[in-house]
Amino acid sequence: MIFGGIEGGGTKFICAVGTAPNDICAETRIPTTTPEETLTNAITFFKEQQKQLGPLKAIGIANFGPLDVRLDSPTYGQVLPTPKPHWSGANLLGMLHNAFDIPIGFDNDVNASALAEHLWGAAQGLDTFIYLTVGTGIGAGVFTEGKLLHGLLHPEMGHIPLPHDLAQDPFEGTCPFHGDCFEGLACGPAMEKRWGQRAETLPDDHPAWKLEAQYLSQALTSFIYTISPQRIIIGGGVGSNLNLLKMVREQTQALINGYIPSQAILNEIDSYIVSPDLGNRAGVLGAIALAEEAWNQKQERPQ
Amino acid sequence: MIFGGIEGGGTKFICAVGTAPNDICAETRIPTTTPEETLTNAITFFKEQQKQLGPLKAIGIANFGPLDVRLDSPTYGQVLPTPKPHWSGANLLGMLHNAFDIPIGFDNDVNASALAEHLWGAAQGLDTFIYLTVGTGIGAGVFTEGKLLHGLLHPEMGHIPLPHDLAQDPFEGTCPFHGDCFEGLACGPAMEKRWGQRAETLPDDHPAWKLEAQYLSQALTSFIYTISPQRIIIGGGVGSNLNLLKMVREQTQALINGYIPSQAILNEIDSYIVSPDLGNRAGVLGAIALAEEAWNQKQERPQ
Repeated sequence: MIFGGIEGGGTKFICAVGTAPNDICAETRIPTTTPEETLTNAITFFKEQQKQLGPLKAIGIANFGPLDVRLDSPTYGQVLPTPKPHWSGANLLGMLHNAFDIPIGFDNDVNASALAEHLWGAAQGLDTFIYLTVGTGIGAGVFTEGKLLHGLLHPEMGHIPLPHDLAQDPFEGTCPFHGDCFEGLACGPAMEKRWGQRAETLPDDHPAWKLEAQYLSQALTSFIYTISPQRIIIGGGVGSNLNLLKMVREQTQALINGYIPSQAILNEIDSYIVSPDLGNRAGVLGAIALAEEAWNQKQERPQ
Repeated sequence: MIFGGIEGGGTKFICAVGTAPNDICAETRIPTTTPEETLTNAITFFKEQQKQLGPLKAIGIANFGPLDVRLDSPTYGQVLPTPKPHWSGANLLGMLHNAFDIPIGFDNDVNASALAEHLWGAAQGLDTFIYLTVGTGIGAGVFTEGKLLHGLLHPEMGHIPLPHDLAQDPFEGTCPFHGDCFEGLACGPAMEKRWGQRAETLPDDHPAWKLEAQYLSQALTSFIYTISPQRIIIGGGVGSNLNLLKMVREQTQALINGYIPSQAILNEIDSYIVSPDLGNRAGVLGAIALAEEAWNQKQERPQ
């Protein structure tokens, strides 16, 4: 029993074969070019692995969004309109199904990461939690009452409006759709544009981090009131800064101001807002989890 | 097969006996005083009804919050700390169980209203939607992927932070916990305090409504990005203003600015943001739905 997983990112595709974090047999990285070329290279990798390891039971693909993830949609499995050249309308699921006659799981990268943290990481045993990534963009995967939340399409939590005091922070934001939404104010490129240097080069005592913590805390407060999560996991290039995480915990607690009578927020904030256990492995492991989920569904409902 | 339902509000308790919107046999209104007096009167009503109609199968109580609705909590069924005198710690579920040896469903008023709209109203057939009430307070019941969302406790969507331009609107907000959160800026009492007259007395062309639409649209935008609902139902004393609803639809669409590639938002906003089908009957009907749910669960898992 072995699964394939693809983490499709904006600059690279990570492909792996295995079943769990401590059981990955093979892995490769493919530069993201056109959908055809990138997927062909991924397919070649899996075909070669099959020669050595035997047939894969299922494949999962965890791709950057926006994606059509609605099972009943005629364009299920495709990339929705995106500013990324060549990728709008790419039929990722179709290309994989043409190459492999096995179940294929399909979801976005943040949902897959949430799934992996639920199975093997910081969200084990929880029904309702948020996996938030703050890096080049800001996105989230959400579990509610034990299930991945899709709803109309899927959450786009990076784009909520936030309080923005122009006297304190005159930066206009980087979001091409909304200007100063959460992502527009707080993603990595917004920090770089505001301060003139890349986020990872800013020292811990730079005022950039205090402002970043302010926006993250406002957003987390909004998510806590809206979703009522049992835990929030924050990953990504910016979100993995532990000094930032400490400030975010303090400020989120201060913003909620005792309104939610839960020990988790009142007294256990350090285990309420946490880093991912799986770090930057959550995406590719989530892809393998999507494969296993697709295989299980096939057993329950043979077509 | 007959159920009892209690809609517990801040000024009155509505008690009804029946099974569905078109099948209510009896109904009464009880002033909200102390928990003991109010619940005793409700229990007396149901006991008298039982003499005529035979035994109730189950009772549901849909009460104002905050409530402890976590099944595994030692204080499940109680009112959590609330500024309302006498009600903090009131053991509503315990009082009902002492009087009736039947299953009793327990949830907050907005969750029950969401349940009723899902069974009989504007959310029939939907998996993921929001029932928002804007009146004396602002609250919401949420379904995600076919289930009522509780999570850590339950959503408190009235308390999200929102953009607040003090130059445009210097009003400081009415929320005792957060000042100018969504509820602090946009609930009925906030409108009354800002403009010096009750919301229902403000004419449709008063600037109050444009500002109210602005805050509601920002909040809805936040909820859409966070929950990804298939529909949003807006009720309550303020939220039921149809002129307001029209502005909210237009402004929400403008704020999202085409970012979510869904026909529901791009082209069908009139059926995406709607009034409740059940109007102010959603609460008591939701209580009856909670009763039926409790009865069904008892059949599945006899204790």
